[in-house]
Amino acid sequence: MALKLDWITDAVRPLDLALRDQALAYQDQLTKPRGSLGLLERIGVQFSAMQGQLKPQLDNIYITVFAADHGVAEEGVSAFPQAVTAEMVRNFSRGGAAICVLARQINASFEVVTLGTVVELEPLPYVLDMTIAASTANFCLDAAMTPEQLLQALAVGAEASERAQQQRAELFIGGEMGIANTTSATAIAAAMLRLPVTDLVGAGTGIDPTLLAHKAAVIERALMKHQQALADPVELLRCLGGFEIAALVGAYIRCAQLGVPVLVDGFITTAAALIACRINNGVRDWLLFSHNSAEPGHRAMQRVLDAETVLDLGMRLGEGSGAAVAVPLFRAACALQAQMATFTEAAVSDQT
Amino acid sequence: MALKLDWITDAVRPLDLALRDQALAYQDQLTKPRGSLGLLERIGVQFSAMQGQLKPQLDNIYITVFAADHGVAEEGVSAFPQAVTAEMVRNFSRGGAAICVLARQINASFEVVTLGTVVELEPLPYVLDMTIAASTANFCLDAAMTPEQLLQALAVGAEASERAQQQRAELFIGGEMGIANTTSATAIAAAMLRLPVTDLVGAGTGIDPTLLAHKAAVIERALMKHQQALADPVELLRCLGGFEIAALVGAYIRCAQLGVPVLVDGFITTAAALIACRINNGVRDWLLFSHNSAEPGHRAMQRVLDAETVLDLGMRLGEGSGAAVAVPLFRAACALQAQMATFTEAAVSDQT
Repeated sequence: MALKLDWITDAVRPLDLALRDQALAYQDQLTKPRGSLGLLERIGVQFSAMQGQLKPQLDNIYITVFAADHGVAEEGVSAFPQAVTAEMVRNFSRGGAAICVLARQINASFEVVTLGTVVELEPLPYVLDMTIAASTANFCLDAAMTPEQLLQALAVGAEASERAQQQRAELFIGGEMGIANTTSATAIAAAMLRLPVTDLVGAGTGIDPTLLAHKAAVIERALMKHQQALADPVELLRCLGGFEIAALVGAYIRCAQLGVPVLVDGFITTAAALIACRINNGVRDWLLFSHNSAEPGHRAMQRVLDAETVLDLGMRLGEGSGAAVAVPLFRAACALQAQMATFTEAAVSDQT
Repeated sequence: MALKLDWITDAVRPLDLALRDQALAYQDQLTKPRGSLGLLERIGVQFSAMQGQLKPQLDNIYITVFAADHGVAEEGVSAFPQAVTAEMVRNFSRGGAAICVLARQINASFEVVTLGTVVELEPLPYVLDMTIAASTANFCLDAAMTPEQLLQALAVGAEASERAQQQRAELFIGGEMGIANTTSATAIAAAMLRLPVTDLVGAGTGIDPTLLAHKAAVIERALMKHQQALADPVELLRCLGGFEIAALVGAYIRCAQLGVPVLVDGFITTAAALIACRINNGVRDWLLFSHNSAEPGHRAMQRVLDAETVLDLGMRLGEGSGAAVAVPLFRAACALQAQMATFTEAAVSDQT
C-alpha cells in the first residue's frame, strides 16, 4: 500500500435513504405498539439504511484489537507497568482476555494487530505483527509520531477494514491495548473539544488521586508543547496519538468508505472516532455507539458526536469489550425488524 | 396441585454466600483492571451465589408468557381493543411476536400460558390453556378475582416454574400479555408504594393525554373501592391484579423456592415482583432486573426493590421482551467470570 494521506478524505459510501424511510414506515406495521421497542427500532432502521435492505441481518462481526506502546508511559501515568501491553497481546493470542471471551460469545472473527511494543513479541497465533517502532515518542517532548509513522499506522488500520470487508463483515469493532493510552486519548479529547484537562481526565486502569493530578499535568504539558499543531486533526493525531489510535482512525475512515458499519467501543476508540469524523465528515454515518465508559471524558466526546449508546454498565476496560458486549442488542434490533409479523400478516387489530 | 395458599410463604432456597465471597475475590485475579467490567462483575458474582459454583454458566433460558384479559378494559383504558389479547396469543403461537423473535435469538424454551381471554381460543402450538375465566372482574366494581381464582392463578404460575426447573433452566423469564394490564399494574404500584396515581400512570400501549387522565381516574376509583383490602399483599393482588399478574407472582415465588434465578422484565412484571417480595421476603434474592421501562411508575417500584438494571432502551412492550433482550449481557457476565485467564495463568503483571 502506497503511503499517502490523500485517501483519508475520499467520500464514504452513501446511506440508502429511501430504505431508511421504508424501514421507518415498516416499523409501525409490526405487531407492537408504535415506538414500544424504543432505541431498538431506530437501530433496525439505521441498519436498513446501511445495508440497503428492509430486513437487515447481522451475523458476521469482525474484531481487530490494535496494540501499541506509548512513549508517554515513561512519565509514570499508568497503574500498570509498560510490559503489560505485550503480556496482554499474549493473553489475547491464547484466548484468556475479556475480548476473547466476548468474541467467542458473539461468534466473531478476531485478530490482534501489533504496531509496536516495548517488549518484543514472538510470532503468535491470531496476532499480525505490523510493528512501526517499539513505541511512539513521549509526546511531552516531541510529536508522538513522525509523518511517515502516522501514514503507516493509518494504513494498518485501513487494511484491517479491508480484511473485514473481504470476509463480508456486517459490523467492524476496533479494540485497543496500550499502557498509557487513556493519557493520549484524554489529550486528544482536550485538544479537539477545547475543554480543560481536569474536566476530562480519569483513572484509566485505576490510578489514585495523586497520580491522577500528575497525569493531568503531563497532558497539560503536552498540549502546551504542541499548541501550534492542534488546529489540524491530522497533525493533532500525529502529535498526541498512539499507533493504535491512528490505526483506529484509519480503520474507521476506510470502513465508512467501504460501507462496513462500525461499532465504536469506549473512551480511546471514541477519541479515534472524533478525529476520523473531523478528518472526513461522512464517517459519522457509519458509526454506531455501544456504551458509556466510566472515563469522565467519554460523555463530552459522545455529545459532540451525537452518539446514542445502548449500554451504561460502568465498564472501563477497552479492548473493544464494551462494543462486543453490546453486539447482541444490535442483533436483536435487526432480527426484530426482519422477523416480526405485521398487523396484517398476524391478523392482529391495530390501535384505534 | 391442591389449591392452598400456605406454600407461598415457604422458605426460598438460600444463596451460597461462601461462593459469593470466593467469586468476589476471584474477579480481582482476572486479567483486567479491578472493577473495569462494572456491573458485569457484580452479575457474575450473583450467579456464583445462586449456582453455588465459581464459574457460572447460563445456557438454558425458560420463557413463559402469561396471557389474560382484564375486566377493567370495559372502562376504556387502552388504545387497543380487547380482542388483541387473544390475537396476540395466536401471534405468539405462530412465532411472529417480538418475544418469539427474541426467544429464538437467545435459544430459549418458549411457552404461552393463557389464563382466560374474552375471545375464546382454539388449541394452539406452544400454548397451554389454563383458563380460569374469560377475564377478571372489573375492579372498579368488584374484586378482580375470587379467592379461588387467585389460588388457581398463583398455582398456574408455580407450575411454570416447576416445568422450568425440570428442564434445568438456569434463568426464568416471565412475560405477560393482557389488554389493560398497565391499568392493573399501576393500581398495584400506587397501592403498594402509597404514591399518587398521577405520579405513576403512563401511556401503556400509547394512549393520548385525555385517555391518560381517564385511566388515572379509573385507578383512583378502584383504590377507593378496595381501600380496606390494600394492607395485605395477597388481598391487594386479588382485588387489583390480573390472572397473568397473579401467575407471575406465583412463578417468582416458586422459582425462588426452587433456586431458579428470575429475570424480571418491565412494568407489569415488576409490579408482580413487588408483591412476591412483600408476600415472601426471600424472593428478592433470586430476582435479577433487566431494563427500565418507559412507563413512569417503573422506577418507583425499582427503587423500592433496590433493582439494578442493565438496559435503558426506552422499551415499553411487555411480553418479557426487555428481559429477553438483556439475556446476552447476563451470559457475557457469566462467561467472562468463567473463562477469563487470571494474572497468574496468563503471566500478566498486576498493577503496582
